[in-house]
Amino acid sequence: MSTHADGQNAIPAPISGRLAVIGLGPGAAGLMAPDVRDELDRAQDLIGYTTYIQMAGPVRPDQRVLDSDNRCEMDRARLAFTLAAQGRHVVVVSSGDPGVFAMAAAVVEALDQSDDPAWQAVDLVILPGISAAHATAARIGAPLGHDFCVMSLSDNLKPWSIIAQRLEHAALGDFVIALYNPRSKARPSQLSQALDLLRRHRTPATPVVLGRDVGRPAEKVTVTTLGEIQPDQVDMRTLVIIGSSLTRQFPRRDGGAWVYTPRWYPNPSADSTPG
Amino acid sequence: MSTHADGQNAIPAPISGRLAVIGLGPGAAGLMAPDVRDELDRAQDLIGYTTYIQMAGPVRPDQRVLDSDNRCEMDRARLAFTLAAQGRHVVVVSSGDPGVFAMAAAVVEALDQSDDPAWQAVDLVILPGISAAHATAARIGAPLGHDFCVMSLSDNLKPWSIIAQRLEHAALGDFVIALYNPRSKARPSQLSQALDLLRRHRTPATPVVLGRDVGRPAEKVTVTTLGEIQPDQVDMRTLVIIGSSLTRQFPRRDGGAWVYTPRWYPNPSADSTPG
Repeated sequence: MSTHADGQNAIPAPISGRLAVIGLGPGAAGLMAPDVRDELDRAQDLIGYTTYIQMAGPVRPDQRVLDSDNRCEMDRARLAFTLAAQGRHVVVVSSGDPGVFAMAAAVVEALDQSDDPAWQAVDLVILPGISAAHATAARIGAPLGHDFCVMSLSDNLKPWSIIAQRLEHAALGDFVIALYNPRSKARPSQLSQALDLLRRHRTPATPVVLGRDVGRPAEKVTVTTLGEIQPDQVDMRTLVIIGSSLTRQFPRRDGGAWVYTPRWYPNPSADSTPG
Repeated sequence: MSTHADGQNAIPAPISGRLAVIGLGPGAAGLMAPDVRDELDRAQDLIGYTTYIQMAGPVRPDQRVLDSDNRCEMDRARLAFTLAAQGRHVVVVSSGDPGVFAMAAAVVEALDQSDDPAWQAVDLVILPGISAAHATAARIGAPLGHDFCVMSLSDNLKPWSIIAQRLEHAALGDFVIALYNPRSKARPSQLSQALDLLRRHRTPATPVVLGRDVGRPAEKVTVTTLGEIQPDQVDMRTLVIIGSSLTRQFPRRDGGAWVYTPRWYPNPSADSTPG
């Protein structure tokens, strides 16, 4: 992407800044993309939660951290454009992948809603990261090894009726289901409702993976089942993976379990033999 | 994970090797996790397609590349365990994330099917990577910014009836849909069938993103619509993202388009105001 004025604009574009929306991955430095590390090093202004930013390493004295307690993603996105339009090098920090229930959608939406030419001239890049779903899956085997869907259970920005309808179709389609934002103090009962809905479609033995703080020092990955899971095993920092009808678990030699969803589907026809 | 013999086994476990199933990410070195780079450097045996392995950088003379033309994933998984059980440090290479339509599920399934204690003693780790879906999404904005599903259109290992049923539920649930393996010479018509199915549920203006070789030198990202897409724009190396009813596109200042799916859902109630 170029930030130069194009041929239709006789007036040279003002020198504008750069806005990078980056994903740290799960947290461990070893799972963060080098391009993301470079953006962090080049940043003048860092926007995001201090907790996430510090996961990525120390902040230099010449770097500003704008860690508003502001929970409004659109306000943070607009702040980022305002600073970048002034020529600053701004990095918006999300954990995981910035495109998955994180800041990338808000930043692009803010641009869509603006007709400020200075915002349009900002050099906007989005750098992906390893998402919590894939990091959790890797720790426990390959539960996302076949068709899956990724949903947020938060009804802050969408009505519960939409969430329930989606869960129903995800269940009917026999997708493996990865749930973000599964439970919060403000919404203690929605995970229970979701599990009740899924239990109408899948057996109690269906493997369920709970990944909390995966890739961080307090990492805990638990394997349970749809029949046994208790909602209080889950909090807002837990990624929940519900298996499909084919997802299997088996014991690890050193304790714990491996969980995977095979790449094949049972089929009477000969050309679908596993392997 | 430990490879030591546990208390139930009085005979010390044999010294066994390590089997790392790794994801290179989309291809560019800047998007590969440092932990993955380390595994590649430590590898004695590399299993995977030469094309992928060479994307990751040069192979040292002391490293073996086992690039069978073998298309059978289970055979490659068993070869990896056989070598690791002999004490080798084996790395199985996938592009993207190894847990998404790649080798992790086959490797864990091979372990599940084996009762060889030497295989059980192998130090098995799976290291995630940035998947093609997230890499493509980042290049074009945030099309996966809300609930989405990830499907393979290949019917090598599952019947088309299952695929069609899943597509139907993904459409009814208004998920954004990321399609892997959308089309091959052996299956030229299935993408057309999938698009016909989706057109019954979504408007012709629905944004569609085609990401080919994203993160590689020949990268090409195209934005089209469900009404305009032609199946011959797509091949096996293309990742296709079909928007939900809310996915939007708008022009970039320098040409091309941004595509995103907002984090909010229209709702008459006051507590769901966007932002």
